Amino acid sequence: MAPVGGPGAKKGILERLDSGEVVVGDGSFLITLEKRGYVKAGLWTPEAIVDHPDAVRQLHMEFLRAGSNVMQTFTFSASEDNMGSKWEDVNAAACDLAREVAGKGDALVAGGISQTSMYKHHKDEARVKKLFQLQLEVFIRKNVDFLIAEYFEHAEEAVWAVEVLKESGKPVAVTMCIGPDGDMCGVTPGECAVKLVKAGAAIVGVNCRFGPSTSLKTMKLMKEGLQAAGLQAHLLVQSLGFHTPDCGKGGFVDLPEYPFGLEPRVATRWDIQKYAREAYNLGVRYIGGCCGFEPYHIRAIAEELAPERGFLPPASEKHGSWGRGLNMHTKPWIRARARREYWENLLPASGRPFCPSLSQLDA
Amino acid sequence: MAPVGGPGAKKGILERLDSGEVVVGDGSFLITLEKRGYVKAGLWTPEAIVDHPDAVRQLHMEFLRAGSNVMQTFTFSASEDNMGSKWEDVNAAACDLAREVAGKGDALVAGGISQTSMYKHHKDEARVKKLFQLQLEVFIRKNVDFLIAEYFEHAEEAVWAVEVLKESGKPVAVTMCIGPDGDMCGVTPGECAVKLVKAGAAIVGVNCRFGPSTSLKTMKLMKEGLQAAGLQAHLLVQSLGFHTPDCGKGGFVDLPEYPFGLEPRVATRWDIQKYAREAYNLGVRYIGGCCGFEPYHIRAIAEELAPERGFLPPASEKHGSWGRGLNMHTKPWIRARARREYWENLLPASGRPFCPSLSQLDA
Amino acid sequence: MAPVGGPGAKKGILERLDSGEVVVGDGSFLITLEKRGYVKAGLWTPEAIVDHPDAVRQLHMEFLRAGSNVMQTFTFSASEDNMGSKWEDVNAAACDLAREVAGKGDALVAGGISQTSMYKHHKDEARVKKLFQLQLEVFIRKNVDFLIAEYFEHAEEAVWAVEVLKESGKPVAVTMCIGPDGDMCGVTPGECAVKLVKAGAAIVGVNCRFGPSTSLKTMKLMKEGLQAAGLQAHLLVQSLGFHTPDCGKGGFVDLPEYPFGLEPRVATRWDIQKYAREAYNLGVRYIGGCCGFEPYHIRAIAEELAPERGFLPPASEKHGSWGRGLNMHTKPWIRARARREYWENLLPASGRPFCPSLSQLDA
Amino acid sequence: MAPVGGPGAKKGILERLDSGEVVVGDGSFLITLEKRGYVKAGLWTPEAIVDHPDAVRQLHMEFLRAGSNVMQTFTFSASEDNMGSKWEDVNAAACDLAREVAGKGDALVAGGISQTSMYKHHKDEARVKKLFQLQLEVFIRKNVDFLIAEYFEHAEEAVWAVEVLKESGKPVAVTMCIGPDGDMCGVTPGECAVKLVKAGAAIVGVNCRFGPSTSLKTMKLMKEGLQAAGLQAHLLVQSLGFHTPDCGKGGFVDLPEYPFGLEPRVATRWDIQKYAREAYNLGVRYIGGCCGFEPYHIRAIAEELAPERGFLPPASEKHGSWGRGLNMHTKPWIRARARREYWENLLPASGRPFCPSLSQLDA
Repeated sequence: MAPVGGPGAKKGILERLDSGEVVVGDGSFLITLEKRGYVKAGLWTPEAIVDHPDAVRQLHMEFLRAGSNVMQTFTFSASEDNMGSKWEDVNAAACDLAREVAGKGDALVAGGISQTSMYKHHKDEARVKKLFQLQLEVFIRKNVDFLIAEYFEHAEEAVWAVEVLKESGKPVAVTMCIGPDGDMCGVTPGECAVKLVKAGAAIVGVNCRFGPSTSLKTMKLMKEGLQAAGLQAHLLVQSLGFHTPDCGKGGFVDLPEYPFGLEPRVATRWDIQKYAREAYNLGVRYIGGCCGFEPYHIRAIAEELAPERGFLPPASEKHGSWGRGLNMHTKPWIRARARREYWENLLPASGRPFCPSLSQLDA
Repeated sequence: MAPVGGPGAKKGILERLDSGEVVVGDGSFLITLEKRGYVKAGLWTPEAIVDHPDAVRQLHMEFLRAGSNVMQTFTFSASEDNMGSKWEDVNAAACDLAREVAGKGDALVAGGISQTSMYKHHKDEARVKKLFQLQLEVFIRKNVDFLIAEYFEHAEEAVWAVEVLKESGKPVAVTMCIGPDGDMCGVTPGECAVKLVKAGAAIVGVNCRFGPSTSLKTMKLMKEGLQAAGLQAHLLVQSLGFHTPDCGKGGFVDLPEYPFGLEPRVATRWDIQKYAREAYNLGVRYIGGCCGFEPYHIRAIAEELAPERGFLPPASEKHGSWGRGLNMHTKPWIRARARREYWENLLPASGRPFCPSLSQLDA
Repeated sequence: MAPVGGPGAKKGILERLDSGEVVVGDGSFLITLEKRGYVKAGLWTPEAIVDHPDAVRQLHMEFLRAGSNVMQTFTFSASEDNMGSKWEDVNAAACDLAREVAGKGDALVAGGISQTSMYKHHKDEARVKKLFQLQLEVFIRKNVDFLIAEYFEHAEEAVWAVEVLKESGKPVAVTMCIGPDGDMCGVTPGECAVKLVKAGAAIVGVNCRFGPSTSLKTMKLMKEGLQAAGLQAHLLVQSLGFHTPDCGKGGFVDLPEYPFGLEPRVATRWDIQKYAREAYNLGVRYIGGCCGFEPYHIRAIAEELAPERGFLPPASEKHGSWGRGLNMHTKPWIRARARREYWENLLPASGRPFCPSLSQLDA
Repeated sequence: MAPVGGPGAKKGILERLDSGEVVVGDGSFLITLEKRGYVKAGLWTPEAIVDHPDAVRQLHMEFLRAGSNVMQTFTFSASEDNMGSKWEDVNAAACDLAREVAGKGDALVAGGISQTSMYKHHKDEARVKKLFQLQLEVFIRKNVDFLIAEYFEHAEEAVWAVEVLKESGKPVAVTMCIGPDGDMCGVTPGECAVKLVKAGAAIVGVNCRFGPSTSLKTMKLMKEGLQAAGLQAHLLVQSLGFHTPDCGKGGFVDLPEYPFGLEPRVATRWDIQKYAREAYNLGVRYIGGCCGFEPYHIRAIAEELAPERGFLPPASEKHGSWGRGLNMHTKPWIRARARREYWENLLPASGRPFCPSLSQLDA
């Protein structure tokens, strides 16, 4: 791989976004690796980066092949308060692995931090910021390309994260895990966006907790909030790969299906193409996914926006756009599915006639 | 790994089944690798074994870790009529990779063949058998532990496959991709089972095309057919990981959702525990999965039958049985989900109120 | 009204059926009058005929206007064992009211009996038959046009009923409340039909307990049973006006929604047109309804079969066939619904996203 | 009946409401009589009052028996612009019939007018008001007890109606057919309520077009609007008997199921008890129904509020509260349904697994 900053260096995240390029994010690590056998639900910590690096590398490779331009370090919940003494090795290994895979394609490495358990217990700014600083030091040592603070349910803590990260001089992206009703204290999406940009974030948006269409509603509110405040920032969305029209403010963790019965809610590739198109039309240019986003969902983003970007991702060698690969099937009624109208209009059945289509929330 | 037949060799498939052991099969390769970006839908051929061996190895590893006792060679549709000149390299590489991973645990290697395209065009016994023989020669050279002929929709072709494979002297398993209505010519499941055992199969059953509960209905009919005929054989089931109560004789390929809109039908881990228990109660002792069976579904089989087998699979280090891992969650209503009754009784919502629960078949 | 048997008398039920005419039955009395406030669920007895004759007369009038050719006496459960000393007045009043309304159009009066409570407690043929004879005596005195024994779940009791009724010399129709699995003792629909025709019934079929499509499956089995036995009889179907694809042998009373939550299952008029057409194509010529069949459902039968019969019922003056009446609506998208394809293909939503589409049976 | 104003006269509508009594409205006429065969969909005019008075009288009787305190004249759409020269006979006959039935119980007669076709074509205040005045003259001649202006989608036309009606000196109620999004010009429910009270209405609320829970949301907004404006008025709600969570601003006419496929959406009696309780808790004291409200739905209101009112309606002689009548059923699992918890928690299935639970709107 070409050394960062040297001749032939990749374009940085802001260069890309400033020039109007679409940046495709990556997808789900914790939920996907839970299903592959390497992450424990409930804990949701990324020790697999040390214990099972091949499994994590393979998933990085799949997202790269699907079209991701960002290899986010597998460091969710990897602060000292969650992982104890292992935290440093985990963060370092995650940087190395992300860099290794990023080097095989046109991807940048993003060092990622997320909300702390500590914040909920005592909102001690100094101690929370200290946790972020520790992770940041590793990211700087490993020279990641930019930084993402993600999965914040309180605007206040997200602002602290941005304040820490911006000290590095690297570009800072920040996403909250909120829906249209705003953060846990009632700060609206528009206000959140304004606070975060004022704190120094160059890229703002949402990740996780809500499905594609809900997340885009939140993005619209963030965008309007920024416009009203006369602020400029790039927009980033990384929604769930699950449909959650019945979620309340708390998002999908309050659904009775979380986390072991979400299967019927998984988005199809066509749902994700729609999401990518709508995100693009809304002005979002950094588009990826969070929990439930498998490699083929990322490929769906890259395929939907191929006309704008001018190229298809490597994994499209194994995918006929809009089901085109079915046109060689032996059964004529399956060949008839090899077209856009078919998949765009399909209303897929659940195969579960004893189940409802929406859930009453637990909380 | 200890050489087969040498000191410390693993117990063979028939030794295991004869002694009443449960054998856990593996899961989905084509559909799963399609979603990971390595297989093309429509073609459904396994050239990834040569082009992307790391991706295939990783999936083998995940199934092994989830508890599989069988590494089936990734050779579905890998006969000469489907793959041209590449067929031999693919079959050889698939044997080597299966053996490599099997060596890391308590798993056997099964060489797999499936129905041919040729049979549909002209039912020329000699030519069809020749295709099977070519693959068999590779399997013998690579010294697989036993053989599986799978995904046959005609009893006649399945019998031919068994006749070829049994010449090797290795144990032969055979599965048809039929439902309770029998094969494409109206041969009932009971009659199919009788024909196949008479042809020399030691293990019979079904794989693919129908969901868990439908597949078990077919198994019951096979078992009754064998009993009525006074025949003995081991039973094997490898159902879809999708719910298909609305399928007709043709199985899931006739559903309008096949193959790119099946998400809402994906089984939960709890559905699969139920399937494993019911299969066991029916007398089936070789239990695995086919399309849609992810590693966590295989783990669910191994966990459900852990009391009978006396051990859990490696991947259970990352899984609290019946959601137990949630008991440390910060939200009390999520902690309340850390129990068997919760998950056993959950009726998961689809999150898709504009979609039906069953589909009208295309054909 | 012209006196029966006198000049200008109406054609009898067998004259009509023998000549190939379609006879349109009537619909729901108990369930419909429960909703209007005159019948008590649980008891399901017809004392309203004496206490609220205007309400019963109005319902008779509505069915007549909708196209019914049969005014069945409102005497369900009106045997002495269910109604005590009131039974005789109820039966007499029901005959008078049915005759009064029948006289206003082209309808016959059918005296109706149904299964007894006594049969379940002790199968004393003499006592059960005595109950039937008592009702029959009233029907003879009131000179009904023909007789219907309906809602029998045991073939044996139905045979007894036919044996009693045929002594009158009047034509006897008989319907069982069974589904494709046959009666409570496992007598198949085909066997039931054969027994009943041999006992002297001229018209056989099913009523109640199962929805339109299930009832037609049962009719098909009855027809095949009669054909196999070389017997001739007219066929009669009066299904529920509710969809019950999830029913078991016991029919709709075992659904958790019975009897106060069946609303989402109510058939549309289009469902009933389909039912009427399919019944006709199956060779059924006496087509009506049971519980849940409102006047507009009867009209739907009469409209669907208007081409065969050559006329529309009076109530069609207030109904544009296939929604034609909407073509004068002010909103263009509602005018667009004024056509057959629209209503034939509509998949009506339940408006209940938290409810399933099928139920687990209680029993 | 005792003459109004004479000794023993009934309490007037305002006396009742002012003293805190609950007034139970009546239910559906047009939709219900369409199903009974006397009204033509599309036209929706009430000529049956002249052509089939027995059918209309019976429905009035059923609502009275179910507990209605108001017999609304069957004069929906009966203005001159819709009915031509018949309008006067229709209005007069409707008053006579309503009075006749009201005299049999504790009910008042309300003369009803509704929005005109003319308003949509040219908003000529004088001509629209003239239409209202013509109907009002009949109502005054027939000495109705109070007046209802209902089913207005524009606040402006509703205000005109109130202005005309209040000239009579009789109490004026007014309901709009709007949802929480307000009238067709964007006037919010709160603003509508304020305008109508200022125009002279003593009772304000909504009727038709939206289901129970949506209508109560609108009522809440009306109530808040009045409170904010410091105005006092009685509240009136008469929702659809259909569930319409998927409606937009236009209400149920925009659902693809309107008007001939609404069956799966019909509310159960338990849904209506919930509606009555929630309306009461919100402060609404005049509670009835509109399209789809059958007599048993009105009875459900009267039963739910029996503790507050101190009595049950006559039709409750045929209804065991909360399914109590089932406790004498022969089958134990049906007896087990004779309790409040059962019906309150029932999630009734549609019996239609090929149908969705919500609809995409046509417009």
